[in-house]
Amino acid sequence: MGTAGEGRDASPPEEEFVVTPWEVRGRVDYEKLLRRFGARPLTQSEIALLEKYAGEVHPLIRRGFFYAHRDFDAIMRWHGEGRPWALYTGRGPSGPVHIGHMVPWILLKWLSDRFGVEAYFQLTDDEKFLDDPEMSLGEATRWAYENALDVIALGFARDRLHLVVDTEDIQLLYPVAVRVAKKLTWSAVRATFGFTDSTNVGLAFYPTLQIAVAYLPTELRGEATPVLIPCAIDQDPYFRLARDIAEPLGYPKPATLYSKFVMALTGESKMSASNPDSAIYTTDDEIAIRRKIMNAFTGGRPTAEEQRKYGGNPDVCPVYHYHVLFALDDASVERARQDCRAGALLCGECKLVLYRRIAEFLREHRKRREKARDRVDEYRVSVKFR
Amino acid sequence: MGTAGEGRDASPPEEEFVVTPWEVRGRVDYEKLLRRFGARPLTQSEIALLEKYAGEVHPLIRRGFFYAHRDFDAIMRWHGEGRPWALYTGRGPSGPVHIGHMVPWILLKWLSDRFGVEAYFQLTDDEKFLDDPEMSLGEATRWAYENALDVIALGFARDRLHLVVDTEDIQLLYPVAVRVAKKLTWSAVRATFGFTDSTNVGLAFYPTLQIAVAYLPTELRGEATPVLIPCAIDQDPYFRLARDIAEPLGYPKPATLYSKFVMALTGESKMSASNPDSAIYTTDDEIAIRRKIMNAFTGGRPTAEEQRKYGGNPDVCPVYHYHVLFALDDASVERARQDCRAGALLCGECKLVLYRRIAEFLREHRKRREKARDRVDEYRVSVKFR
Repeated sequence: MGTAGEGRDASPPEEEFVVTPWEVRGRVDYEKLLRRFGARPLTQSEIALLEKYAGEVHPLIRRGFFYAHRDFDAIMRWHGEGRPWALYTGRGPSGPVHIGHMVPWILLKWLSDRFGVEAYFQLTDDEKFLDDPEMSLGEATRWAYENALDVIALGFARDRLHLVVDTEDIQLLYPVAVRVAKKLTWSAVRATFGFTDSTNVGLAFYPTLQIAVAYLPTELRGEATPVLIPCAIDQDPYFRLARDIAEPLGYPKPATLYSKFVMALTGESKMSASNPDSAIYTTDDEIAIRRKIMNAFTGGRPTAEEQRKYGGNPDVCPVYHYHVLFALDDASVERARQDCRAGALLCGECKLVLYRRIAEFLREHRKRREKARDRVDEYRVSVKFR
Repeated sequence: MGTAGEGRDASPPEEEFVVTPWEVRGRVDYEKLLRRFGARPLTQSEIALLEKYAGEVHPLIRRGFFYAHRDFDAIMRWHGEGRPWALYTGRGPSGPVHIGHMVPWILLKWLSDRFGVEAYFQLTDDEKFLDDPEMSLGEATRWAYENALDVIALGFARDRLHLVVDTEDIQLLYPVAVRVAKKLTWSAVRATFGFTDSTNVGLAFYPTLQIAVAYLPTELRGEATPVLIPCAIDQDPYFRLARDIAEPLGYPKPATLYSKFVMALTGESKMSASNPDSAIYTTDDEIAIRRKIMNAFTGGRPTAEEQRKYGGNPDVCPVYHYHVLFALDDASVERARQDCRAGALLCGECKLVLYRRIAEFLREHRKRREKARDRVDEYRVSVKFR
């Protein structure tokens, strides 16, 4: 689950935006992206199925941030038949976690609680090490443990969160991964991920591990246990492959639930680790949070006067986008949208509201995060299943 | 450590023989092969070094079967300085073990005893699974355990033999392997091993594991512990890479000691699993051993009369070759050679002598092999170092 890419094809395709597991460039047209990947939009009837079994619909789905899927409806029906399934997502531990990273994890936690199902969370320290010429393996593994604190802090039931740290839990993954590897030729991974001759053989092999976790619940339980994977849509290439080879390997096809990207505070389509001011990290103190939010790019007008006269544009505004992701009630989001458009809400006020919400969220999060520090191993999949 | 190859370049080069880790074709010119690979012949002065420290020279070296090396002299000098080193070899567990497989292991055991150093023995069940379209992973792992019995039966001291079963001991190997992988591009492994676009990514990654074991003693001991690898010369491509990247990764360069191939009973340069009559398996009973040896190809003449008149040719004769490998004293080998050439020894008699020697060797071996059956885990590297 990645960022910048070493040894991949750097030539930009002749399109207005680029989305790969390692790169998001240009302004993303999410509908077009969906057609490009061949995933399906999340429809009202699928959301109704979710509501039927979960009793409610999470705001991240209700507000359209999770917007696409593969076989989400099949998982809901499978659940309706009382059959076992599991959740799966992950993180490439290349540095500290920002709130954008946490958005899919928040949905993961909600789904795990609502459906009472286990969540597998992969920390791909091997991939981050293999992908970043500057990073040592020890450093990547330390980030995996550091990032795990943010996952645990979301409040998962201990017996329902299974952390998979690639280099430390490889004993469970490798026998599955080699069976995946036997189905994937170099030309297949090259085409899917844009690898080149100078890609290292670790990165060439890595997709087998991200795919292997999708089959791990079936392995560990000894019965067909499909996974639902909530993640950003850039991960689709992995799970498209995972779906293609599942049945020949005797596993149920994984289902996916895809989100858009979390906008950078600077207004780009996706938060970037290369500019620390473009993202709010879970370890940022309140002064830093306030500074970053107050300095954020907005959809507002250059002056308060123009804003009052013409209104702002929430659709390009990261501050509004964060209200969508983090506001507690839909009504306040809708009100912010209308007031912005009408020129009744100025950016400074709107930012202050967001600051208070994010600061409050992270205040609690940081406490739980520190409490998790000595308990990571309790959530490790191999410690439990050894 | 391999046999037949899937997804590798099948076009035969314009040379009179082919040697890769997966294939030996044609009549091998061992001197030419040495120059092709760039390894060095084992000289009298290096053998004298061995004798100095070991107190004697093993027949397999004395009789020229181990004939080449990389840095064998450096390992002897390192030993002379009282510094730690280890031994390493391995086996691709694709089926039962024949006596040809065991020849390098016999030297491994002797070196381990004589120098009191630990021997790492890798069983590459992952590779055999990835390489053979017909083999399941479970089958390859079962062969790994079955083949391990033959290794243990050679009589290694328990604390000096460390078995590495790739899929079961991957936790120790993987963190080293990913650091190897970061140094190996697709184009490097393609060039070294003749991979193609249809090679699966498991085979593309596999060389990192065979290389990783060469660094494992240094990892486990926490101090520079070079390995000496006695193996057939077809494994040189792996260890050439292992030597190239050792120093950038902070490991001492592995040294190697290369043997020729064990001739097939049918007269080809290397025993082949595809014809069971070309090899004597450790589990063959005495009737089968006798039948195979008595039916073997020889360097003899069509009739006893011609043999007496013109003599035979031990240089192309697998029966003579097996005397070289297994006879207890040099004098009997030399006598067989001279008597054959002089026409004084007929093939039938010569085969009977060989049959008695091999049957005796395997009679003891089979007993020790069965005794080992419940003790394999005691030799497993991760069971010891967990």
